[in-house]
Amino acid sequence: MSEEISQQIEQVIRGEEESPGDTLPPLGTELEPEQIALVLESLPLEARLDYWQQVPREQQVDVLVEMRLEARASLLGRFDSQDLDHLLSDLDAETLIELAESLPGEVVDIALARMDERQRAHYEQSAQYGEYEIGRYVDHQLLILPQNSRVRDARRLLRREVPEFTERLWLVDRTGRYAGAVAITRLFGQPEHLSLVELLDEELEPLQATESLLEATERFEMELLSALPVVSDKGLLLGRMTTKLALELLHEHYEGQIMASAGLDEDEDLFAPVLRSSKRRATWLGINLLTAFLASWAIGLFEGTLQQVVALAVLMPVVASMGGIAGSQTLTLIVRGLALGQITAANMKPLLQKELSVGGLNGVLWALVIGLVAAFWFSSPAIGLVIALAIVVNIAVAALSGVLVPVLLHRLKIDPALSGSVILTTVTDVVGFVVFLGLGSLFLI
Amino acid sequence: MSEEISQQIEQVIRGEEESPGDTLPPLGTELEPEQIALVLESLPLEARLDYWQQVPREQQVDVLVEMRLEARASLLGRFDSQDLDHLLSDLDAETLIELAESLPGEVVDIALARMDERQRAHYEQSAQYGEYEIGRYVDHQLLILPQNSRVRDARRLLRREVPEFTERLWLVDRTGRYAGAVAITRLFGQPEHLSLVELLDEELEPLQATESLLEATERFEMELLSALPVVSDKGLLLGRMTTKLALELLHEHYEGQIMASAGLDEDEDLFAPVLRSSKRRATWLGINLLTAFLASWAIGLFEGTLQQVVALAVLMPVVASMGGIAGSQTLTLIVRGLALGQITAANMKPLLQKELSVGGLNGVLWALVIGLVAAFWFSSPAIGLVIALAIVVNIAVAALSGVLVPVLLHRLKIDPALSGSVILTTVTDVVGFVVFLGLGSLFLI
Repeated sequence: MSEEISQQIEQVIRGEEESPGDTLPPLGTELEPEQIALVLESLPLEARLDYWQQVPREQQVDVLVEMRLEARASLLGRFDSQDLDHLLSDLDAETLIELAESLPGEVVDIALARMDERQRAHYEQSAQYGEYEIGRYVDHQLLILPQNSRVRDARRLLRREVPEFTERLWLVDRTGRYAGAVAITRLFGQPEHLSLVELLDEELEPLQATESLLEATERFEMELLSALPVVSDKGLLLGRMTTKLALELLHEHYEGQIMASAGLDEDEDLFAPVLRSSKRRATWLGINLLTAFLASWAIGLFEGTLQQVVALAVLMPVVASMGGIAGSQTLTLIVRGLALGQITAANMKPLLQKELSVGGLNGVLWALVIGLVAAFWFSSPAIGLVIALAIVVNIAVAALSGVLVPVLLHRLKIDPALSGSVILTTVTDVVGFVVFLGLGSLFLI
Repeated sequence: MSEEISQQIEQVIRGEEESPGDTLPPLGTELEPEQIALVLESLPLEARLDYWQQVPREQQVDVLVEMRLEARASLLGRFDSQDLDHLLSDLDAETLIELAESLPGEVVDIALARMDERQRAHYEQSAQYGEYEIGRYVDHQLLILPQNSRVRDARRLLRREVPEFTERLWLVDRTGRYAGAVAITRLFGQPEHLSLVELLDEELEPLQATESLLEATERFEMELLSALPVVSDKGLLLGRMTTKLALELLHEHYEGQIMASAGLDEDEDLFAPVLRSSKRRATWLGINLLTAFLASWAIGLFEGTLQQVVALAVLMPVVASMGGIAGSQTLTLIVRGLALGQITAANMKPLLQKELSVGGLNGVLWALVIGLVAAFWFSSPAIGLVIALAIVVNIAVAALSGVLVPVLLHRLKIDPALSGSVILTTVTDVVGFVVFLGLGSLFLI
């Protein structure tokens, strides 16, 4: 898939370069909306706008839904009233929920006014739920029957147009409350008058609309199901969540985590305007600057020593960086464990023991190597000894912090995947510098 | 889900502490195999073995399949011949494929000898495909009919026991080649004698068995399908891939990437034996040591300058770390773009321009801040000027490397998510130190 996208991008940009301003050749019709969205995101703003003109009208809404927030906004911002008019002419509730964030409030109101009553009701229901609640993202493509229906009612319903991904029928009581699911495959070979309640899928627990996206996704990893019913706190059947949505959410979750670990937003546009992009990244740089100054301050405590033994200044980064790497290894393992619920007060002690042992072993091993190298480099066994000791201490501290920092953050309800690594390296930097330069002051002067 | 797991872990470990050696209370029956696997992975070896004894026999195989390789091996290594005998008594092809990696060759042979002929054939077919090919992981729970079947044949088949996740029937020709799919929902309201070929799902393209796990997963993000047929290079229908598998694979992929970025293995056991764990992590520390020594060597070039202006030693980490952070931001954005196929030779130039502009803007901004702080700290405008210049240069270099390093690695077919960040920070460390200390030598002595 990614090759087709790359080819398309090449073609568009080369076309723009060779004859700027010309209309582009129409795009290959085999591209799915997801692929067109990826291509649009990969183009600088000018080319992006030109390419957008080539997207067939009937695909435009689907493409917008698939785009990341920021890149989508860069297109919507250029829409004239005619474009908007077309966009709003045939939106369903799910699409409007997806696009609402990128549209001005009054445009959303116009879209709502144009919707038929059922879709509007769906929209208003979904909009009650928050950004991280599954109730917001349900789809309404489901086949619903009253709970007292019989096999022949189900068969009659299935003779009509059936939405994709339909594996079950959903039963509701008179007030619209979820009453159970019947697998379509169970309808074969049953008498016409059999009550559907006899064929119920007993084990199927509905999702609560307030469950988090990630919790909802986990359900699909444990069960062989293509869709789950989503119910309100009163038990009303709101819609369904499909495995396709679960896949998209999981993708976004991890992408978001990876981006967040560098202080970026999941929705960051490859070609975001320079000013906006700089502003956003500046915050992360600023936080990092504070931690870097903290390390500098620690070094500053030993100015006198550094002046006398300049070798210490040369070797400083080795101590800090070995601690940082060893600590990140432990941190990464613990962050995964926390996300899976595997780390509790009870197994903290054996975990600390194990990580400290691993750290101790690696600390001693690398202390020997580094000590020998340093002793020969500066022809001073004392320097070798000082750095060896500092490495052992810093790697042990790194192991300890690698366990404790994420666990503490987790208890404080702060995502350790985001801030854990900044705090950890601050600890290993400061401890590394203080121990190394402190030992240097004691033994080398 | 994760709370239930944490509670169970607490309970087991507390139980072990209070009455070591006693048999544990039987576990809550509501736990799914996936959850039991997570609990087992979270226990130190002794407790893990005790807890394993409580896992109901009928769940044991499913639990083993769900466990990560290393933790699973820690259990299988303790199995006596009776345990193995039980384990092997009723394996299907898919389970054996999953477990084969953790079992000695002769045990796999015994398991194969005990399988019925059909399962053995399935196993041998799957085993032809590599670890990263989807053909290895197909399941065989599908309803297959000859392509000349009629609606009544389909209905007759569906009256029998139907596997979970069944949404379509698969048609094959006389030689077993895939011939198309029919949605079960289309069977309603059709005449008994209608040929199934009339109801074919025209758009459904099968997956090739040699497609990579990730490519196969992408298909499910684009289509509303609960399962896709998988065919051999000759077009034979081998089995199906389900969205449940796609979710598991996506999860493993991202977990693997996050672990790999710290030099860890996706299968790393929380309670791996200390020696094994140390050995594995030592490699990553060793690689990092080489890069740290490179930075030290760069600093060593300026020993004389450092001795005269010790403030340079104090401020060094600030220059290196601002470069490292700015570079990682660009790197992370580019790595995501590469993974999605969004970065090509054609959009490299505008991307570099944009990232250099963002870097330039942030470089100047933070150079001013840092320069002022340094000038006041050391009461020396010259030091402020030197560090300000070094920051601007290093952040610009970071932006450049943040784009070029991952792109080059990608061209060399090396995963930039793994090694990109080590190389990048080596560049920003060395450049930062050389520029800062070099400017210091020029202007401060």
